[in-house]
Amino acid sequence: MVGGDWTRDNCAVGNTLAVIGERWTLLVLREAFLGVRRFEQIQRHTGIARNILSDRLNTLVLHGILRRELYQERPQRYEYRLTKKGLDLYPVLLTIMDWGSKHLGGRAITLTHKSCGATAMPQLACPECGEHVTARDVRAVREEAPLGRTA
Amino acid sequence: MVGGDWTRDNCAVGNTLAVIGERWTLLVLREAFLGVRRFEQIQRHTGIARNILSDRLNTLVLHGILRRELYQERPQRYEYRLTKKGLDLYPVLLTIMDWGSKHLGGRAITLTHKSCGATAMPQLACPECGEHVTARDVRAVREEAPLGRTA
Repeated sequence: MVGGDWTRDNCAVGNTLAVIGERWTLLVLREAFLGVRRFEQIQRHTGIARNILSDRLNTLVLHGILRRELYQERPQRYEYRLTKKGLDLYPVLLTIMDWGSKHLGGRAITLTHKSCGATAMPQLACPECGEHVTARDVRAVREEAPLGRTA
Repeated sequence: MVGGDWTRDNCAVGNTLAVIGERWTLLVLREAFLGVRRFEQIQRHTGIARNILSDRLNTLVLHGILRRELYQERPQRYEYRLTKKGLDLYPVLLTIMDWGSKHLGGRAITLTHKSCGATAMPQLACPECGEHVTARDVRAVREEAPLGRTA
């Protein structure tokens, strides 16, 4: 019925989850987007066990989402900064937070658009016409060939 | 340093992950958004083991993201449909898919905006001024009080 392989290993959603879907990882990224860069602070804000936090940070560095930067020589201490690839995860964080605060509760972040001053949650819009887009407004079709082989 | 408790249990991101962050769950939702409603079809498209798929579907029904609907009496057979709460997860799926296809590869979905005909991935925009929004364009501040206690 479906043309080709749409299992986890061959899908952009599944591939993403394999990297950021691990328990706690998005909380580490939440801190990174709030400008919290040091192990001790991230640990304090999230309450993640130190060994798990260390593991998650290493994974994010390995995947090029965070980079380690030396900020103290003796003893050597590193901070963690978002790469371009990491910054591109912002929409993922925001949409998860938006859904959670609407439907499950929990504390969220207040966002202000720097250029216009609006305090509002960004929402999905069509890049062509600018209209707000929901599931009902879009027709979705599976791509016939894997990305990278279409060109 | 941070006013209040921002651990996993008290954060909109953490609360959301507790529901949709389980391995495979977003793949089940991907199928739901593509209009695939029956157990056998979801299983075929995703390759998820039957016992795990059954567990994930039950969890999504329990959380009011999918609802079960009888479509055959003898033997009784159900299909799974997105609720309003489930449909609201669309931006989460899209942003995850977009990031994955950009940075990791894997097959993605082609989206067409019904009203204007554009074939393009929706992107985050400011609901006030309509401008495209990235991590650099927004100032984020932690809310002082938990949601629900601010009013």
